Amino acid sequence: MSDRHEATGLGKGRIEAFSDGVFAIAVTLLVLDIRVPTPADTPTHQLLTRLLHLWPELFSYALSFVIIGVYWVAHHLMLHALKRADRTLLWINNLFLMWVALIPFSAGVLGQYRHAQVAVVLYGLNLVAASLSLQTLWAYATRTRSLSDAPIDPKLARAGTVRTLGAVAIYLAAIALSFLSPDVSLAFYWLAPACYVLMQSRDDRRGRAAPRSPEARTLPD
Amino acid sequence: MSDRHEATGLGKGRIEAFSDGVFAIAVTLLVLDIRVPTPADTPTHQLLTRLLHLWPELFSYALSFVIIGVYWVAHHLMLHALKRADRTLLWINNLFLMWVALIPFSAGVLGQYRHAQVAVVLYGLNLVAASLSLQTLWAYATRTRSLSDAPIDPKLARAGTVRTLGAVAIYLAAIALSFLSPDVSLAFYWLAPACYVLMQSRDDRRGRAAPRSPEARTLPD
Amino acid sequence: MSDRHEATGLGKGRIEAFSDGVFAIAVTLLVLDIRVPTPADTPTHQLLTRLLHLWPELFSYALSFVIIGVYWVAHHLMLHALKRADRTLLWINNLFLMWVALIPFSAGVLGQYRHAQVAVVLYGLNLVAASLSLQTLWAYATRTRSLSDAPIDPKLARAGTVRTLGAVAIYLAAIALSFLSPDVSLAFYWLAPACYVLMQSRDDRRGRAAPRSPEARTLPD
Amino acid sequence: MSDRHEATGLGKGRIEAFSDGVFAIAVTLLVLDIRVPTPADTPTHQLLTRLLHLWPELFSYALSFVIIGVYWVAHHLMLHALKRADRTLLWINNLFLMWVALIPFSAGVLGQYRHAQVAVVLYGLNLVAASLSLQTLWAYATRTRSLSDAPIDPKLARAGTVRTLGAVAIYLAAIALSFLSPDVSLAFYWLAPACYVLMQSRDDRRGRAAPRSPEARTLPD
Repeated sequence: MSDRHEATGLGKGRIEAFSDGVFAIAVTLLVLDIRVPTPADTPTHQLLTRLLHLWPELFSYALSFVIIGVYWVAHHLMLHALKRADRTLLWINNLFLMWVALIPFSAGVLGQYRHAQVAVVLYGLNLVAASLSLQTLWAYATRTRSLSDAPIDPKLARAGTVRTLGAVAIYLAAIALSFLSPDVSLAFYWLAPACYVLMQSRDDRRGRAAPRSPEARTLPD
Repeated sequence: MSDRHEATGLGKGRIEAFSDGVFAIAVTLLVLDIRVPTPADTPTHQLLTRLLHLWPELFSYALSFVIIGVYWVAHHLMLHALKRADRTLLWINNLFLMWVALIPFSAGVLGQYRHAQVAVVLYGLNLVAASLSLQTLWAYATRTRSLSDAPIDPKLARAGTVRTLGAVAIYLAAIALSFLSPDVSLAFYWLAPACYVLMQSRDDRRGRAAPRSPEARTLPD
Repeated sequence: MSDRHEATGLGKGRIEAFSDGVFAIAVTLLVLDIRVPTPADTPTHQLLTRLLHLWPELFSYALSFVIIGVYWVAHHLMLHALKRADRTLLWINNLFLMWVALIPFSAGVLGQYRHAQVAVVLYGLNLVAASLSLQTLWAYATRTRSLSDAPIDPKLARAGTVRTLGAVAIYLAAIALSFLSPDVSLAFYWLAPACYVLMQSRDDRRGRAAPRSPEARTLPD
Repeated sequence: MSDRHEATGLGKGRIEAFSDGVFAIAVTLLVLDIRVPTPADTPTHQLLTRLLHLWPELFSYALSFVIIGVYWVAHHLMLHALKRADRTLLWINNLFLMWVALIPFSAGVLGQYRHAQVAVVLYGLNLVAASLSLQTLWAYATRTRSLSDAPIDPKLARAGTVRTLGAVAIYLAAIALSFLSPDVSLAFYWLAPACYVLMQSRDDRRGRAAPRSPEARTLPD
């Protein structure tokens, strides 16, 4: 196990630092999707109207900011449960980051075409891909004994899985709903981060109520 | 308390690293608001004139750089006073960062429409929202005993509040003034960082003059 | 040796932090190459068609994400083998980062002109330049005794060289192939990261099979 | 002194991390100045010609990458000489970063108008402003006893000053030369990083030749 870590030469810390960088940049790049009007395309007396019409882009910005924020929290909780990393974990992590770094693009399309089903579905597919690769990371992490010193408590491993797959279910429902109404679908996307936060609070309370074994202390939540 | 920290799995350090990333990127993205002229839109012989007309954008760049700099300082002083973080703090922090990361957009609008009241008001509202969420962070941090080992000295807790709400007052005054003259209003925005620096220096001197209790040493300033 | 390190004042850690920042930003900037359509240029009913036509840009995004990911891994493994840095290493590193930070541009051209030989060659030349400067870094690092405490095992030094020059060979082959067919050439670019990962896994297994001397423990893989 | 540090609450480490972020982002944003051609403005058969005409932008990219690299090295050597930071240092540092983060804009203008004197002068003025604020940082740092444990050796304090003001002299000479020929002027800009590297190597050799006192070991170079 220790050999494996040395063989990688990439501690958990480096992966966290690189991931944090990608998260911070992705979340800040979202603002570039809100196009700054210029006097050439919008005369001053129309500026207020133009800015008021930007609200779908602001809405898309806020939604994506919250969703990337939830990914950041979930990602850290997962890595927190591990003591070391190997190459497989590293590449699953890069795959996950590839989908996260794509969110500014999907959010940009959503901001431009708020009522178009295509845009709503594209956004949903991006989130499904990101969540599934995060779940792959967690499945690999919880099943690979060499990554942590003590086996991860199955109950808590499942809690993480339930939360991530719960988000996937909500995103798929939102995609299905978009065939009825893209607007209802959009409201649905807010459900996923809301549920994640609520489920995490509940899991926290349960975790505190139960007596904690020493192994449990290394678990994500 | 220690349980709570473990339950979060997100130390204060990770929140600081993520926030630092967002601050550094937001401040550097400001430069993208200053559009680089191209030979296609500006012939070489008009370049000087064009660059001289960019001064409102440079002014907006400098103002926003200083204001984000003040937020960075204030944010660190607040987190410095804490020993650990919980989920509520994390989400208030993300809300605050969402407003900070929006500043490059509002600054871009201000750079394009320097004399338009709408642009001046938009910029002010963005700053008010950022400051109020920072104040929410501080109010939560100072009232939640589990986040620090010793209670935070009320006098110093109040000093932070006064400085943040002082900035809000200045921004609201600038918004009000914009109904008279957007140009006067703009000058007012410089007041907030200037006051913050002055008030902080004064609080520093007082802090050094007074005998410091052990608790006081963990306070932000 | 220790003097040299002090003279630089730049520990290995600072170089790693700066490089990590550049890697994380370069990889995230790739998304800006995928242009967000706007209602002005693409009516809503054509959005699906437009998005489906974006697949070369998505392909270019994924390819470059993976390639920069491999550079990040290779770069860390190399620095991991060293105990300290000197100015020469620092400047070779900056040269390498200059080529890495240029990849979002070459990838952007490739995304726009997927079937054009010129775009395929430009992309290949950028990768060749990046790999050669990485190889220069490694050659300097393995030959400069003052940078590590124990001499680097020649067998493992060669393993790193073989992997990096192997990538160069693949990129040159892809450039040559582009004279026959740019499309075949593009598929070739995926070979380099695939080979790197496979060769690294093989080297890992060999490394674990062989008895490890204390010196070997400081080696990159 | 210790009080002062606590009063700030901002260790040297935080300032370094924030500055590193700004440096890494500024250097990577440079690539956005090289505009990716699109089929809409450049038909495929003209792509090669178009790319060959991009060389001034690539030249501007490389020059600015090297110059920001030198600022990064110089900045770290200066902070390396200090043990702690105070608010004044913090704000001088933010002023310096404001000029560094503006370089992608000036470099963009230079890339677009390579033969225009105005562009050459703008670039030079940006560098002069950055260097002068870096020199202000160094002057404050070397004169403020409370920031380091032992007084900084005047000989070495002067070496840093000579290198920074030497760069200012070269930039001013380049600005003056631009009245004769913008092209000659441009070549001059490469002199500054070249001289910096040469002077630093010479200072290094001298530093190693001379017997080092314990205080000298904490000096930047």
